[in-house]
Amino acid sequence: MTFSSTLLENAVNEFAKLPGIGKKTALRLVLHLIKQDAAEVNYFSEAIATMRKEIKFCKHCFNISDKEICNICINPSRKKEIICVVENIRDVIAIESTQQFNGVYHVLGGVISPLDGVGPDQLNIEPLVKRVTEEKTSEIIFALNPNIQGDTTIYYIGRKLKELPVKITTIARGIAFGGELEYADEMTLAKSISNRIPVEQYITPV
Amino acid sequence: MTFSSTLLENAVNEFAKLPGIGKKTALRLVLHLIKQDAAEVNYFSEAIATMRKEIKFCKHCFNISDKEICNICINPSRKKEIICVVENIRDVIAIESTQQFNGVYHVLGGVISPLDGVGPDQLNIEPLVKRVTEEKTSEIIFALNPNIQGDTTIYYIGRKLKELPVKITTIARGIAFGGELEYADEMTLAKSISNRIPVEQYITPV
Repeated sequence: MTFSSTLLENAVNEFAKLPGIGKKTALRLVLHLIKQDAAEVNYFSEAIATMRKEIKFCKHCFNISDKEICNICINPSRKKEIICVVENIRDVIAIESTQQFNGVYHVLGGVISPLDGVGPDQLNIEPLVKRVTEEKTSEIIFALNPNIQGDTTIYYIGRKLKELPVKITTIARGIAFGGELEYADEMTLAKSISNRIPVEQYITPV
Repeated sequence: MTFSSTLLENAVNEFAKLPGIGKKTALRLVLHLIKQDAAEVNYFSEAIATMRKEIKFCKHCFNISDKEICNICINPSRKKEIICVVENIRDVIAIESTQQFNGVYHVLGGVISPLDGVGPDQLNIEPLVKRVTEEKTSEIIFALNPNIQGDTTIYYIGRKLKELPVKITTIARGIAFGGELEYADEMTLAKSISNRIPVEQYITPV
C-alpha cells in the first residue's frame, strides 16, 4: 500500500499490528477516526495509554484490576471460601456476566500445554495452592475449557490439593442450550449421559 | 459484559466505537495491548492522536496529506495536466499501488446520491472545474465505482466541463483478471464487448 501521508501510514501500521486486523481494515479504522472530532480521538488514544500504564493484576487472584486488590476480591459480600479457577480474564468476564457465581476467582494465566511449552511453573498454580492452604477454602470449581490441556491442568492441580480438606468440582460438560442432541459430538453426549443429574436439581436455580 | 476494572472497561468501550468492532473483539484487542510493552502501546496511542491532530487535506486535490499540498501534487515528475477523479482517499491508495498512473488526483469526497442526501454541492466539484479551467488540464480520467451514483456523477461533471478543451475518459469496465466469462454479470459482459479494444493496444503496456 502506498500512502501520500506519513502520519496516515504510521497510524495504519500501528492498527495493523493488532491481532486479526490487516492493512485494509486498519486503513478503514483510521479513515473513520479522521472523520471523528479531534476531542473524541484524543479520548480514544488517552483511554488506551492510561489503561496500559495504570492497569494492575490483582495480587490475590491475578484478575485485571485498577488497584492492588481487585473489586471482586475486595467485595465483602462474595464468598471467599469458594474459588473458581479459570484460564484467563476473558473467562472471568464471561462467568461474571451470568451473575450466577458469588465466590471469588483465581486466574491461572493459561493451561498446562507441553506442546506450546507451557508447564505448571509458568502458571499461577503455586499461589493457588498457597491460597487454599491459608484461606480455609471449602471448594475449588474448575471452569476450564473442555480439552486435553484443560483436563491435564485439572488433574495436576487436583493432585497438588489432594491432602487438603477442599472439595474439588468442575463445571458441567453437556449439551448446550439451543444445541441439538443429533448434532452433538459423541464425547459431549457421552459425558452428558454419564454425568446426568436429578431433575429436581436441574429445575431448581442455584 | 461485566468488567472488574474501569480502565479496562473504558478502553474496550472506546475500541467498540470503531466500525465493525464489537465488544468481544474490542476486549480481545485490549487484552492484546495489555500484554505488549508499555512503550509500544504508547507509540500506538501517540500515532493515532498525532495523526488526527496534524493531518491535513491537500488544498489542491483534497487528498490526505501531512502538509498544505500533498506529496503527489508537489512531485515535479507527475503530469499535472492529467487529473484522475476519484471518490475517496482509499481509491487514491488503490490506484497508487498499481504504479501505473503518473498524473495527479482529485478527490470528490463522495458521489452524487440523492437517496443518501448527497448533492453536487457537498462534493469537491466546483474546485475541480476551477482546476480544469485554470491549469490547462488536457485529460480528466474518471475512476469511480461502476454504479448508478458513479455514472450520475460522471454525467454531471461531464456537462460542467463540456465547454472546456479537455478530454474526458473513464477507466475501463470489463471482465476482471482471474474472473470467468461464465460467471460475469450481463452488464459487465455487455460493456466489455461494446468497449472492445484492438489486441495490439491490449498487449502493449501503457
